[in-house]
Amino acid sequence: MRVAGLISGTSVDGIDVVVCDITDTEIALVEAATVSYPHEVRREILAISNANVHVGDLSRLNFLIGELFAEALVDVADPASIELIGSHGQTIYHHRDSTMQIGEAAVIAQRIGKPVVADFRVADMAAGGRGAPLASFLDYRIFRHPRRHRIALNIGGIANITVLPAGARPEDVVAFDTGPGNMIMDALAPPFDRDGERARAGRVNEPLLAGLLQDPYYSLPPPKSAGREQYGQDFVERTGINIATAAELTARTIALGVEKYPAIDEVIVSGGGAHNRFLMERLRAAIQARMIASSDLGVNVDAKEAMLFALLAYETWHLRPGNLPSATGASKPKVLGKISLP
Amino acid sequence: MRVAGLISGTSVDGIDVVVCDITDTEIALVEAATVSYPHEVRREILAISNANVHVGDLSRLNFLIGELFAEALVDVADPASIELIGSHGQTIYHHRDSTMQIGEAAVIAQRIGKPVVADFRVADMAAGGRGAPLASFLDYRIFRHPRRHRIALNIGGIANITVLPAGARPEDVVAFDTGPGNMIMDALAPPFDRDGERARAGRVNEPLLAGLLQDPYYSLPPPKSAGREQYGQDFVERTGINIATAAELTARTIALGVEKYPAIDEVIVSGGGAHNRFLMERLRAAIQARMIASSDLGVNVDAKEAMLFALLAYETWHLRPGNLPSATGASKPKVLGKISLP
Repeated sequence: MRVAGLISGTSVDGIDVVVCDITDTEIALVEAATVSYPHEVRREILAISNANVHVGDLSRLNFLIGELFAEALVDVADPASIELIGSHGQTIYHHRDSTMQIGEAAVIAQRIGKPVVADFRVADMAAGGRGAPLASFLDYRIFRHPRRHRIALNIGGIANITVLPAGARPEDVVAFDTGPGNMIMDALAPPFDRDGERARAGRVNEPLLAGLLQDPYYSLPPPKSAGREQYGQDFVERTGINIATAAELTARTIALGVEKYPAIDEVIVSGGGAHNRFLMERLRAAIQARMIASSDLGVNVDAKEAMLFALLAYETWHLRPGNLPSATGASKPKVLGKISLP
Repeated sequence: MRVAGLISGTSVDGIDVVVCDITDTEIALVEAATVSYPHEVRREILAISNANVHVGDLSRLNFLIGELFAEALVDVADPASIELIGSHGQTIYHHRDSTMQIGEAAVIAQRIGKPVVADFRVADMAAGGRGAPLASFLDYRIFRHPRRHRIALNIGGIANITVLPAGARPEDVVAFDTGPGNMIMDALAPPFDRDGERARAGRVNEPLLAGLLQDPYYSLPPPKSAGREQYGQDFVERTGINIATAAELTARTIALGVEKYPAIDEVIVSGGGAHNRFLMERLRAAIQARMIASSDLGVNVDAKEAMLFALLAYETWHLRPGNLPSATGASKPKVLGKISLP
């Protein structure tokens, strides 16, 4: 089945689009691209995320982002070739007890003329889960290994890991957000610090770093998930953090998550953070296990999240669950998302 | 199929719950009840409707209203007996180009353990429709007559009519919001003016009424739809309208809609406004056609809207369209709503 996946992450950099061929056992990437948001739309999304908004503006933005997601898909692929679409939408709020993504699925379904599955986090949360991380489902499918203990690490706005013991069954999988990904660094050097050169040139504020590492979040047992509001503009203003310290905090909190599992053989890195050479160096310094890029295992580092939502749409379309309760904390496996017909 | 229908209207009076037995040709009402919102929730919904809100509060309210809808259904019916649920949710914004209903369907699906269809207006709007009035679909199913020209009039917060010529085909149906229903009167005498006694005791401000009737909305050709923001608190404050004038404006604008169709034999009234004796008297004075209550044709006046969403869920579950393009202005029939699985 040819399935498209669409997501804009918490960094609001643009719309990641993938087209995949999916069977019950395989996922092959056919196309991948990122389509930028118009500048004023990105600004508007950032302005309302975890902030006040007029419901009329939010309602209009929900429809507009639906249009932009549909246009992004049309830019990348022939709609006639697509059979199903999974759209994560744009997160504007994510917290322990509720979550909100926008980007009207009915608009995408109408424009493309194909069914859309969207709003993937709410069913897991309704069953007591955190609605995140969901990526563990894809990681389990693609990266689990009969003899190697692996961790899949995705560094988006937030960083998350999926722990995949050798020969893991679904219930053996542990996954959680380790803390900040690119979010703090992006806020300090918008849109992002290419190759981490600004962080490399800066100087770590050690007392501040030591204080930030005391945040009880990092020692909480999984499952746990972090939100944009935890590391957004407020965080930058409140702490006065600089970019070198942000990079070190990111690397150290990821390492804190990974090092809870001492027998790990390989850490498989994906997400925009995989392009940040300085961050990768700091991670290698902090982590014992071998680090490899997900691309080396056939998963484009920039496309993994969008592939996840293509896969989850495929599972929902076949009425199969898409969460791993051991990862999200939900009370049971749930068929994720809502189905909109064209 | 036993299907539940859930809605809270723009007046935010409470959650209307119905249970219906539905086949491809019949709808039989099994249970109907209205469950009040907790006072502070009603206040919160009214405070954010067409106003500013923190997205975190909105996200939390979306989940909370989902819980309250599920609880309301459990109060009225045994969840085990229900096979499917249609939930309209709570409208917090409705405008020409976008609409927003909240009341998380995934929460209802989880609590009741049955599939939920929700978010019925967006697919019609994505196809260029106004997402309203949707009631014409039920009116067409239940009230069309081989020899009588009929109008179905529903007086909720907003008043709408469905014009059903004798022997009508779907494409012959015209439907639109005539203007205010109970909304202005409710704002002036919360929660509502029992039997219209306060309006009866008041005095119509004729110059103000004449001015308000000049609003170009009333002469616009259908399809057209009105929103809460058109007749909400702002309207009351801006115009300084009193309750007698509000009742007369409501009756006269309904009559303006009905009298566009001079050959009508019967007007079938439903909605909370059907209980307002004074309003009914003013309507009888303004309308030529015979007026009858929908209850006389087997449709509880208070249950009709919730029955609509049970019926639309049933149609969606069978992958059949639920809008009438001639009523909403959509470019084509659409399967309405989003399906959430338990």
